[in-house]
Formats: sequence, structure tokens, C-alpha cells
Amino acid sequence: MKRKGILVVVSGFSGAGKGTLMKQLVRTYEEYALSVSMTTRAPRPGETDGREYFFVSREEFERKIADGGLIEHASYCGNYYGTPAEYVDKQLAAGRDVILEIEIQGALTIKERFPSALLLFVTPPSIKELRRRLSGRGTETQEVIDARLRRAAEEAEGIEAYDYLVVNDDLDACVGQMHMLIQGAHSAPVRQEAFIDHIRSELEELVKGEN
Amino acid sequence: MKRKGILVVVSGFSGAGKGTLMKQLVRTYEEYALSVSMTTRAPRPGETDGREYFFVSREEFERKIADGGLIEHASYCGNYYGTPAEYVDKQLAAGRDVILEIEIQGALTIKERFPSALLLFVTPPSIKELRRRLSGRGTETQEVIDARLRRAAEEAEGIEAYDYLVVNDDLDACVGQMHMLIQGAHSAPVRQEAFIDHIRSELEELVKGEN
Repeated sequence: MKRKGILVVVSGFSGAGKGTLMKQLVRTYEEYALSVSMTTRAPRPGETDGREYFFVSREEFERKIADGGLIEHASYCGNYYGTPAEYVDKQLAAGRDVILEIEIQGALTIKERFPSALLLFVTPPSIKELRRRLSGRGTETQEVIDARLRRAAEEAEGIEAYDYLVVNDDLDACVGQMHMLIQGAHSAPVRQEAFIDHIRSELEELVKGEN
Repeated sequence: MKRKGILVVVSGFSGAGKGTLMKQLVRTYEEYALSVSMTTRAPRPGETDGREYFFVSREEFERKIADGGLIEHASYCGNYYGTPAEYVDKQLAAGRDVILEIEIQGALTIKERFPSALLLFVTPPSIKELRRRLSGRGTETQEVIDARLRRAAEEAEGIEAYDYLVVNDDLDACVGQMHMLIQGAHSAPVRQEAFIDHIRSELEELVKGEN
């Protein structure tokens, strides 16, 4: 029986290292595909269309919404961000697990629409380390750091909605753990429906056959 | 932060190979302890008290129930079977994952009492293989085989209550997968409550500290 891919949603505190983890995961294992979001914000220097984002106009984005072509979308600071359905559907059908970075509200929307989606929450090993990482970039003002900490405190309230909490201490160890969790998730009954149906109908036939 | 053990419940069709899997798991990895059940049935030739079962009298068993000394218990063919709480509690507190074989009703009782218990359902790769294994023992009458198939059909209705469905095709591969699933389960929020509380209180303090 051909196995379907899992939609894997990755959320976590700013500074937890989500982006690096996901890139490393996709580079290390061939069973994963990284979903690329669509946005109406302008590309920053060094960003390429189709790599960091699909950059589109407001009109194109709104047409996409109207056509049901986005799995989820949200608006930040006057720009749209969303997940194109086509790429995700194609990869899942081909048996690849699709990794998607998204904040908590979007993650909950996805879980509602795809009950078999797997939700991972990434956290640094400690808040001290989170603070160090946020400050360590050296590019942010104290106000920005404080705003991120407040945001992190809010996000921490939602952790129970996630399937797994992944602690990012060592990059390679953490990527290995994410891989293990995603592969393990294929064995959950919600992702084995075809096999379970098959077993049930075979057993029923055998039991009927007795009489 | 010291990690607590997980109570791992293993169920599955008769003939799925649960007993062999569990023994191999405990032999291969040192983080597991096998729970030994208590029963009022008489020991069979070759069975040792404390290894296959704790063999006790009806009076002792009923005193154990009255004292709350059993996690769960049930009655089959006029004999009691139950799980002594003391051993399980001690091993969990010491950080070891405790493996417990039990049928579906008992598994559901345990999940209610221990929401952080992990429920694994073991199945052979196909029903054809299940039937072959049941017949292959060569020691059972057709009536017994048929009764087991009917029982399997009933049990199959409960698979969704389990966290994972484990297909026992190759013994070593299956033991490796069980190990992966149990280790992964430590990362679920329900088993990370202390860490999550810690993160939340640290974040709250930092946010308060700003003002």
C-alpha cells in the first residue's frame, strides 16, 4: 500500500532556530519537501522568487484566495502571507512529507483542515538561551527583543495544541529527532486509515466465511 | 530536569507476536522494564512466580484490589488478572519506561487513569499472515482459531484508541520501531509538563521585568 505524505507544521519561538532546522532536515533526508509561502511583500536583497517566497501582487494573492488555492493565509503589517495548496497536495500525493513553517494561529487552522497534519513546536533548551539568541544577533533594539519575549510568552500558552515539543540544543541531534518524530507519526492510526480499513474488511470476510 | 518514565501499553491480535517483541525490546534497550501481572490462576509447568506472573490466592488478590494496589484488573474464565501498582510506580519514578501487555478494555482503563500512557497496537503485516501464524502453531483446533479471528475482528474496531499501530513483519525492525516511538513519545507536551511550566514561568518573569 503506497504511503501518503504527512503535512508537518513547524512553529516555535522567534530565535528557536526553526529555519535552520528545516533547511538541514530537507538537505539531510530525501523524503521531505519544503513548502514555499506566497506573499505580497516586496523581496528583500538576496531573496529569490520561488525560494524564500513566491512574490506576487495583491491582486494575484486575492484571486488565489477566491479560487481556494491557499491552505491558509494571514495578513501581517499590511502584507498577505499564505500557503499555496497545489505544491503541498502534489508532494503529499507523491508520498513526500511536506514541511511548513507557520505561527500558531495558522497551525491550528491547518490542524482543523488536515486532522492528520503533524504539529511540531521548536524551543531553545532554556529561556536564558532564547534571550541570548535574540540579543546575540546584535541587530535588534531592546524594544524589539522585549516584543519578541512578550510574543514568546503568548505562544507558550499554545504548546499543548502541538503533537511534539522539540528542544533545539544541538542542531544535528535536533534534526535527527524531528526526522524520528515525523517517521514515527506515519504509524499513528489517523495516518494508517487505508491499512486499518483493509484489515477490518479482511477480518470481516473471514468471520463471515466461517458460517 | 529529570525525565519520568512512560507507561507503555501493548495490545494486539493474538498471534501478532507481542510477547516476543516485548521481551526483545527489554533485552535490547536498558531504559525499559517489563511489568509482571498478578493472577489467581495456577502456574503452568515451566512458569516461575515473579517472572511470567505473580501467582497469588484469591484472598490475596481481593485484598490487593481493596487496598488500591492494582492499576487495573479483570476477570477471565474465573481467574483474576491485574497489574500491581507498586512496581510500575517505582520504575516510572526512576525514569524507566514500563512495558505492559494488556487487552483493549484494560488499555482504555489505563489511558483514563494515566493520560500520559502510550498505547501501542501490534498487528501482523496482513490478515493472511495472522491466520497463518494462528494455524501454524499446529496446537489449536479450528474452533479456537475461528474464535481468535472473531476476537481479532472485535479488537480491530478499537485501533483508533491507540497512539500507534505497529506492524510486526520483521522482529528486529519492529523492536527498533517500538523503541523509536516510545522515545519520541517523551517529546509530547503531555509528557513535558514540568519543562513547559518552567518555560512559561521564566517567560512571565522576563515580561514582568520589563516594566
